[in-house]
Amino acid sequence: MEPLYVIKIGGNVIDDEQALFAFLEHFAAIKEKKILVHGGGRVATEMAEKLGIPQQMTGGRRVTDAETLRVVTMVYAGLINKSVVARLQALGCNAIGLSGADGNAISAHQRVSGTIDFGFAGDIDQVNTAFFRGLFDQHLTPVIAPITHDGNGQLLNTNADTVAQETAKAMSGYYDTVLVYSFEKAGVLLDINDPSSIVSELDHGRYNELRGSGAIFAGMIPKLDNAFSALDAGVRRVIIGSADNLAALVSGATGTTITNER
Amino acid sequence: MEPLYVIKIGGNVIDDEQALFAFLEHFAAIKEKKILVHGGGRVATEMAEKLGIPQQMTGGRRVTDAETLRVVTMVYAGLINKSVVARLQALGCNAIGLSGADGNAISAHQRVSGTIDFGFAGDIDQVNTAFFRGLFDQHLTPVIAPITHDGNGQLLNTNADTVAQETAKAMSGYYDTVLVYSFEKAGVLLDINDPSSIVSELDHGRYNELRGSGAIFAGMIPKLDNAFSALDAGVRRVIIGSADNLAALVSGATGTTITNER
Repeated sequence: MEPLYVIKIGGNVIDDEQALFAFLEHFAAIKEKKILVHGGGRVATEMAEKLGIPQQMTGGRRVTDAETLRVVTMVYAGLINKSVVARLQALGCNAIGLSGADGNAISAHQRVSGTIDFGFAGDIDQVNTAFFRGLFDQHLTPVIAPITHDGNGQLLNTNADTVAQETAKAMSGYYDTVLVYSFEKAGVLLDINDPSSIVSELDHGRYNELRGSGAIFAGMIPKLDNAFSALDAGVRRVIIGSADNLAALVSGATGTTITNER
Repeated sequence: MEPLYVIKIGGNVIDDEQALFAFLEHFAAIKEKKILVHGGGRVATEMAEKLGIPQQMTGGRRVTDAETLRVVTMVYAGLINKSVVARLQALGCNAIGLSGADGNAISAHQRVSGTIDFGFAGDIDQVNTAFFRGLFDQHLTPVIAPITHDGNGQLLNTNADTVAQETAKAMSGYYDTVLVYSFEKAGVLLDINDPSSIVSELDHGRYNELRGSGAIFAGMIPKLDNAFSALDAGVRRVIIGSADNLAALVSGATGTTITNER
């Protein structure tokens, strides 16, 4: 199968124009098929603040009331998405910006939770692989904002990490798919204060071993559990690491490469 | 050639959810290929006001400084575009929302004016017909927000009427293209206060006659000049009229139908 990179760009890069431009240059230079997924939480929080809309976070997730949904739709699918697309076009990458509503790319349902009302937060039901494959046939590069829809006219705020993961899982039936999480950390570290303590390769056995001995930072565990769940669903590799040099990260020269080889 | 409708939706419809939903139902029901172009000026003005960004209008056009460009990008390409797309999806229309940057759909240059600095306002250079035809091959319905780009990473605010007109002109080489301006008026009226004074059909001769006698409302003249310029460029018909019943308008049963027959 042909390779495909699904790359999640971290929030710290979105917030820093110089870092963003450097990142997008690397992204544009990737010759294989690729999909970019972005968030933009800090910009949305700032915009909500300017508009006097109080923001509530629960367990690291935004509670999305109707006013907040308007803000994240504007910021993610409008401001950030179109700025990234225009920049990629300038770099010779024929990008197309999408929410999950566009082309019915990603459908979801409103999250139902026993105790917490997350408001208009979406849990993904389906990624429209035929649509994405059609865009690739037109030599287009999808840039996805983390807004989905329920098929009944309701937009839903959706975690960008999850959007990247579910897109990679769905596309892995058609492409040799690599899921890349680029963020502010160097990768999985044995000592959170020492970038040289990076675990370059991680498979299930080593993960269980490190996790059992308490060597893995607790904040990383949900990300890694998700990574292994993506591998179980057919994703070839998951790479986690610094957005500073995307070319090195994508090649596996930096960061932590997670595989299902046992 | 196969028919294509390029339909501009007026600002008054965007501002009224009930009117918008009724309009989109009619739009979704059009069986032929179709493109929707929307603005959203009033929502953008309100948002700029909430954010404390002063708005300057010159000759009915917004002066787009950097802060205002952020606002119109958020409101047009984010909030309004995605709300319309999600609604059309719910109506069984496989819509895809676009700015001019997406897929390099519409490229433009920053307006150069002798006397007035319009800021980041774009004048259109090219409509990417191959891209739109590719979307039609995927059975997608484009929904265009009036934000274009200059190919060098700069987004530009562009008049939505002009976006509709240039898109219709470019597509008329491939489709039997009808350009529809749906707005708050019934069409071209001989008496602006009397909807029954509508001119149902207008060709160049009759236009010159009515214009010469001062029978046409001055505010309508630029719209009509643009309509005839679209016809000269290959558009088959231009229809101008009320958004209240889009089905009747598109069929020519209401509104003013403008043709180049002499």
